[in-house]
Amino acid sequence: MRILLVGAGGVGGAFAAIAARRDFFESIVVADHDAARADRAAAADARFTATRIDASDARAVAALCREHAITHVMNAVDPVFDMSLFAGAFEAGADYLDMAMSLSRPHPETPYERVGVKLGDEQFACAPEWERSGRLALVGIGVEPGLSDVFARYAADHLFSRIEELGTRDGANLVVTDADGREIFAPSFSMWTTIEECLNPPVVYERARSDVDGGWFTTEPFSEPEVFDFPEGIGPVECVNVEHEEVLLMPRWIDCERATFKYGLGEEMITILRVLHTLGLDSTETVRVKGVEVAPRDVVAACLPDPATIGPRMTGRTCAGLWVTGTGKDGAPRSSYLYHVVDNEWSMREYGHQCVVWQTAVNPVIALELLARGTWSGAGVLGPEAFDAVPFLDLLTEYGSPWGIRELTP
Amino acid sequence: MRILLVGAGGVGGAFAAIAARRDFFESIVVADHDAARADRAAAADARFTATRIDASDARAVAALCREHAITHVMNAVDPVFDMSLFAGAFEAGADYLDMAMSLSRPHPETPYERVGVKLGDEQFACAPEWERSGRLALVGIGVEPGLSDVFARYAADHLFSRIEELGTRDGANLVVTDADGREIFAPSFSMWTTIEECLNPPVVYERARSDVDGGWFTTEPFSEPEVFDFPEGIGPVECVNVEHEEVLLMPRWIDCERATFKYGLGEEMITILRVLHTLGLDSTETVRVKGVEVAPRDVVAACLPDPATIGPRMTGRTCAGLWVTGTGKDGAPRSSYLYHVVDNEWSMREYGHQCVVWQTAVNPVIALELLARGTWSGAGVLGPEAFDAVPFLDLLTEYGSPWGIRELTP
Repeated sequence: MRILLVGAGGVGGAFAAIAARRDFFESIVVADHDAARADRAAAADARFTATRIDASDARAVAALCREHAITHVMNAVDPVFDMSLFAGAFEAGADYLDMAMSLSRPHPETPYERVGVKLGDEQFACAPEWERSGRLALVGIGVEPGLSDVFARYAADHLFSRIEELGTRDGANLVVTDADGREIFAPSFSMWTTIEECLNPPVVYERARSDVDGGWFTTEPFSEPEVFDFPEGIGPVECVNVEHEEVLLMPRWIDCERATFKYGLGEEMITILRVLHTLGLDSTETVRVKGVEVAPRDVVAACLPDPATIGPRMTGRTCAGLWVTGTGKDGAPRSSYLYHVVDNEWSMREYGHQCVVWQTAVNPVIALELLARGTWSGAGVLGPEAFDAVPFLDLLTEYGSPWGIRELTP
Repeated sequence: MRILLVGAGGVGGAFAAIAARRDFFESIVVADHDAARADRAAAADARFTATRIDASDARAVAALCREHAITHVMNAVDPVFDMSLFAGAFEAGADYLDMAMSLSRPHPETPYERVGVKLGDEQFACAPEWERSGRLALVGIGVEPGLSDVFARYAADHLFSRIEELGTRDGANLVVTDADGREIFAPSFSMWTTIEECLNPPVVYERARSDVDGGWFTTEPFSEPEVFDFPEGIGPVECVNVEHEEVLLMPRWIDCERATFKYGLGEEMITILRVLHTLGLDSTETVRVKGVEVAPRDVVAACLPDPATIGPRMTGRTCAGLWVTGTGKDGAPRSSYLYHVVDNEWSMREYGHQCVVWQTAVNPVIALELLARGTWSGAGVLGPEAFDAVPFLDLLTEYGSPWGIRELTP
């Protein structure tokens, strides 16, 4: 296995650090638009080399794949580059993995009622070509989507005879302080992507509505607020509906009545996102400011600390998981939260990467290891729930980061 | 009287429209960094001419004054240009008026307890030179500061024998809608200046503390929230302490135990300002964004509609006023709110300018008319409370915009 890792930011850097400890691959080419950043990530291991890339140029991606006889393209850049990397990998005959899916576009008339172009639609439209070529595009294989989808498959195979709702729930109690020990606002994940996710119309799946748009529909942002009690000391966090890939992936492979994604944004982040939207600061269209053109959203992101750099000043834990309700294998009502918690102190000490990017990056490393071993195999455009969950979850534990189940009152 | 009006934005444009109806001056030169904007404002009257100016260049200001034999420089630009215009006018032997005062700088160690450089300090430091030259700098002669200070003088001369607190209170019920009639966020005053005012440490005066920094001290932003009931249908609005010139001006001329300024920001604006500060988007220091340098605060301002353009889509009223408490001339406790309300529909119909900029601009026109008539005269750096209030308030009524008093329970 010869991997092209595109993107050496927070998640790409953590991917390199995790992969460096495993022996399932022959080489990794680390490519970034910032050559220095690629160099730093590639320093992790002698099997790594670094290069510069324009991720928006599918031909350049294909050429780089051919030059290095790449077998797997690992996309660790913003989802805006999904389609160029996906196309470049296909052109070069490589398999492809990403941690998101191609972007959505809201319904032109009723954006908060009906779906328009859904997350992943552009990629799934290419599924027949990938199948015919015997090539695999494994999409949504981060932590969420990714591990959450693995949990869905595990729940369907081993815990439930009938699933009512597959509800991804994400929450954390992370706190970042400045040099003087004062708490500051510093998101642990790309603010640009957080704005994209949280201000897009949230998507929900209901089988009962499958006569319209296949059962997928949208709501107003921040809908259905709910306080979810997260495990391992994180505690209750306010969660709201957010557009996320799981809702589009899970119902394609797992029988369920409903699929949702709720993000534990917390009150402060919800207020901040609402204000950014009110002021138009979420916009990606440029405005003219004293003779220069800038996109307001880029300015917002530029004002905040780089999520890749805040690890040493952060404390707390992050939790990704799936709340499944329905009927257990024993025929009784069941409500279970399958989850994975990473403590920032642990990930910083063990890997030198903060917990949110580490938790995202560990999953595609595991998936690649299962593909290298032949434990997982397939062709087409597939989500993580298309594969057996058990070897994945076992390997996660072997990597030193076990998962858990909390039984809730059904 | 030959006036140089510097700044043809919202307030400058309204100043030109109001002055055009009066005959107390000989000519007005309208100068702006944007020559087209100066041309538009100068079209109001045959006595007006337009030119381009760099307001930050005191020598250029002095040269322009000499070229046109200017007697009065009227500053209608951002307070950041106060000192260059103030110095340029002095150099050319012209009198000077502004609607703010030179800017403050927070105390380097205890910004939310002690004052640093106060509003107007730099100008008052030059007062002896202005006095010796017999020249007048009339500072803070907009609506707030300005009319509020005139009210303070009126209250001291005609209503109160002893003043406990001079509390400027500003509130409005303005609503702006978009082309589809939906309510939008569109401040009626420069967002840049609103951020400057509201995020600087608010300043308060208390005579009892005059052994330290002359009685002036600062608090955390948004301190001492209070719901004030504004007259003429505006109703209750949440007001908070904000740094404002009145607090620095009034105690210099009017005996009082306390001076405050509370701005009826309302909950939404307070939330927005807090978020901008949390994210660092209030900063005036540039950040690098995709190869260009921009100040986040400029980007915030650029994303919002130009306050000068929102008049036709705005409804409601704005109120400026002074809440005075103490002992009346009759020896009994007294609590009075002296106020001035402008209805946007009226100012748009009568002058084609929205109510907030109109209400600001009418006051320096009146002051110039009183100076032209010789009703007001003086030398040095003076606030509006240094002059007799009665002719000013009479002229305000003559201009078609009367003021009022609401008696409150003492």
